[in-house]
Amino acid sequence: MKNQLLKFNSSYLHQAASVVGSKERQGPLGEKFDSFSEDDRFGQDTWEKAETEMVKRTVEALIQKSEIEWDDIDAFAGGDLLDQCIATSHAMNNNGVPYLGLYGACSTAAEGLIIGSLLAEKGFTVGTVASSHFCSAERQYRFPLEYGSQRTPTAQNTVTGCGSFLLNSKKSDVRVKEAIIGRIQDNGISDANNMGAAMATAAIDTILRYFKKTGRTEKDFDIIATGDLGQEGLELGKEYAKSLGLILGSNYVDCGMLIYDLKTQEVGAGGSGCGCSASVFAAEIYPKIKNGEYKNALLIGTGALLSPKSIIQNKIIPSVAHLVCFERV
Amino acid sequence: MKNQLLKFNSSYLHQAASVVGSKERQGPLGEKFDSFSEDDRFGQDTWEKAETEMVKRTVEALIQKSEIEWDDIDAFAGGDLLDQCIATSHAMNNNGVPYLGLYGACSTAAEGLIIGSLLAEKGFTVGTVASSHFCSAERQYRFPLEYGSQRTPTAQNTVTGCGSFLLNSKKSDVRVKEAIIGRIQDNGISDANNMGAAMATAAIDTILRYFKKTGRTEKDFDIIATGDLGQEGLELGKEYAKSLGLILGSNYVDCGMLIYDLKTQEVGAGGSGCGCSASVFAAEIYPKIKNGEYKNALLIGTGALLSPKSIIQNKIIPSVAHLVCFERV
Repeated sequence: MKNQLLKFNSSYLHQAASVVGSKERQGPLGEKFDSFSEDDRFGQDTWEKAETEMVKRTVEALIQKSEIEWDDIDAFAGGDLLDQCIATSHAMNNNGVPYLGLYGACSTAAEGLIIGSLLAEKGFTVGTVASSHFCSAERQYRFPLEYGSQRTPTAQNTVTGCGSFLLNSKKSDVRVKEAIIGRIQDNGISDANNMGAAMATAAIDTILRYFKKTGRTEKDFDIIATGDLGQEGLELGKEYAKSLGLILGSNYVDCGMLIYDLKTQEVGAGGSGCGCSASVFAAEIYPKIKNGEYKNALLIGTGALLSPKSIIQNKIIPSVAHLVCFERV
Repeated sequence: MKNQLLKFNSSYLHQAASVVGSKERQGPLGEKFDSFSEDDRFGQDTWEKAETEMVKRTVEALIQKSEIEWDDIDAFAGGDLLDQCIATSHAMNNNGVPYLGLYGACSTAAEGLIIGSLLAEKGFTVGTVASSHFCSAERQYRFPLEYGSQRTPTAQNTVTGCGSFLLNSKKSDVRVKEAIIGRIQDNGISDANNMGAAMATAAIDTILRYFKKTGRTEKDFDIIATGDLGQEGLELGKEYAKSLGLILGSNYVDCGMLIYDLKTQEVGAGGSGCGCSASVFAAEIYPKIKNGEYKNALLIGTGALLSPKSIIQNKIIPSVAHLVCFERV
C-alpha cells in the first residue's frame, strides 16, 4: 500500500438532501431533514417499494435544492442495504442518468462521496445517494416485523433514511479535500446483534492511517463522525484507539447516536444502516460545515459486511470504514 | 447529461487472471484460464466459501503473474452476485488492502475497470475483481441444486468464474482509453428466465451513446463484446440496434456465448454472472489485445438488477450496461 491518501484537487460539495421515517423525525435532528413519512410507507404497498420511493424523493429534493435540472447531472453513484441493492436501482430506473452501483453496507454514503469525487475531478456533476429502511432491512436481515422478536441491548436500529449529495469541480464553500479507502478486517466478532463492536476496529484503523499519512491529529478537526458504531461501538472504538496511543475526545461522535435520543427512543445502541450516516451528514454535519461552524470535518462511514447466509454459516463479520475529509473554504 | 464520455489519460491494464469451475474448463476457452476446480468446491464445504476461495485464488494468480508483492497494490475494487457481496468481502478480509465494494450484477467487471481507472489516474495501483458461482447463485436466485428444477430455453447458466485485473498509470501495451457509464433502464421484461432480453436494450443504449459521443463506428473495433446477453439477448440486441440505424456485424459477440459450447453443453442461452465477462475478458479478449490481434476493443458489461424479492413483487427487471474501450498502444 504505497499510496493510501486520495487527495482531491477539485471536488466540491454543493448541496445535500435527506428524507427519513417517523422515528427519525421524532429524534433530535427531526426538523432538519427535508421531509419524512408519517408511517414509513411513503405511499407504497411494500417496504421495498417504500424505500425506492424514499430514494426518489431524496434525489428530487437534491435537484430542487441545487436549482439544477435532471439533465445537469452526469452520473449517480449509490447503494442501499437490500439484496442486490434493489431500492436504489429501482429508484434510478429510467431516469436517464448514468449510474454506478456500490455496496459498502452502512459505509456506502462515504464510499459514494469518494467515488463521486473521483468523477467530479473528471468534470462530472455527480449525485451520490445511500439509503436504508428499518422495515425492509428487518425482514431481510432478521425477521418480519410481525414476528415481534426481542432485541439485545447492543443491537442497533436500522435508520429509515436516505441522504443524497451533489458534487462537481466548481468551487463551493465545502471542499472534499481527501479520503482514505478502508481495509476490510475483522476482530473475531460473529454476533450480528453487535455490529458496532464488529466495526469499531475497522474505523480506528482507517482513522489512524489517515492521521499517519497526513500528519494531522484529532485536534485538527471540529468533528470526527463515524457512521454507525452506536453506543457500544463508539466506546469500544475509543478504548481501542487509546490502546494504540490515540486519545479521542468530545469531537468524536457517531451518526447513529446523533439521529436518535437513546434515552427516550427504543433504538438499542443507536442507529445503523446506509441511511444513518447519509441522512445525518446531509441534515446536520454538512450544513454546519457550510455555515462555518465546522471548519474541518471527518466522516468515517462504517460498514459491517455480513449477510444472513454468512451468519448462518458461522462466519465472522468483516467490516470496512471509509474516511472522507471536508474543509470549509 | 452534459458529460458522458469518461476519457482516461493514464490508465493501463498490466495483467489479468482468471479461475473457473468444471463446466467452464470443459468449454471452448477451457485451457486459457489460469486454473480451475474439478468439482467447483475449491476444497470448501459450502458454495459461498467455495466462491470466496475462488476469488482468493484469482487475486493470488494476478499478483503472481504481475510479479509484484501484495504491498504494491493500493486498492481493490470488486463485487459478486451474492447477497451483500459476501464472496468478495470475505476474500478481501484481513488482506490489508483498501477495498471499494461494487454492485452492478453481471456488469461488475466493467464497472470495476472504470472505477479502477479513476484510481489509476490518481497514481494508485489497483486490482479489480468480479466473480460468480453457479451453485451459490442458483440457491440464492432460484432453487437449491437438489431441487432439480427445469430451465427454460432462454435461461442462462451462471458462470463459475472469477476475473481479476491490474491497473495503474505506468504505460503498458493495453491502454484503458475511455468509458461510458450505463443508464439503468427496463424494457418491460419481468421474466427472470430471460435476462438476456431484459439487458439487450441497456447494452445497445450504451453502445449508441458511445458512438455518438466519440464519432466512432462499429467498424473501428476488432471486437465489441457484451458481457452476458446470451444467444437470445445478443440477437435481440442486434435487431434493436438495427431498428435504431446501427448494423452490428460479426465483430459483435457475447462473453456468455464464448465461454460455453451452446451446442454440446447444457447451458441454455449461454453464460451469465459477474464471472462471465470477467473471466472471458481476462482469459480470451485481454490476451488478444496484448498480442496485437485486437487493436481496438469494447467490453460492454451487462447487468440485470433483479433480486428474488423484486421478482416475487412482480417488478420489471431494470438493467445497466457499462462500456470500456481498450486500445493496443
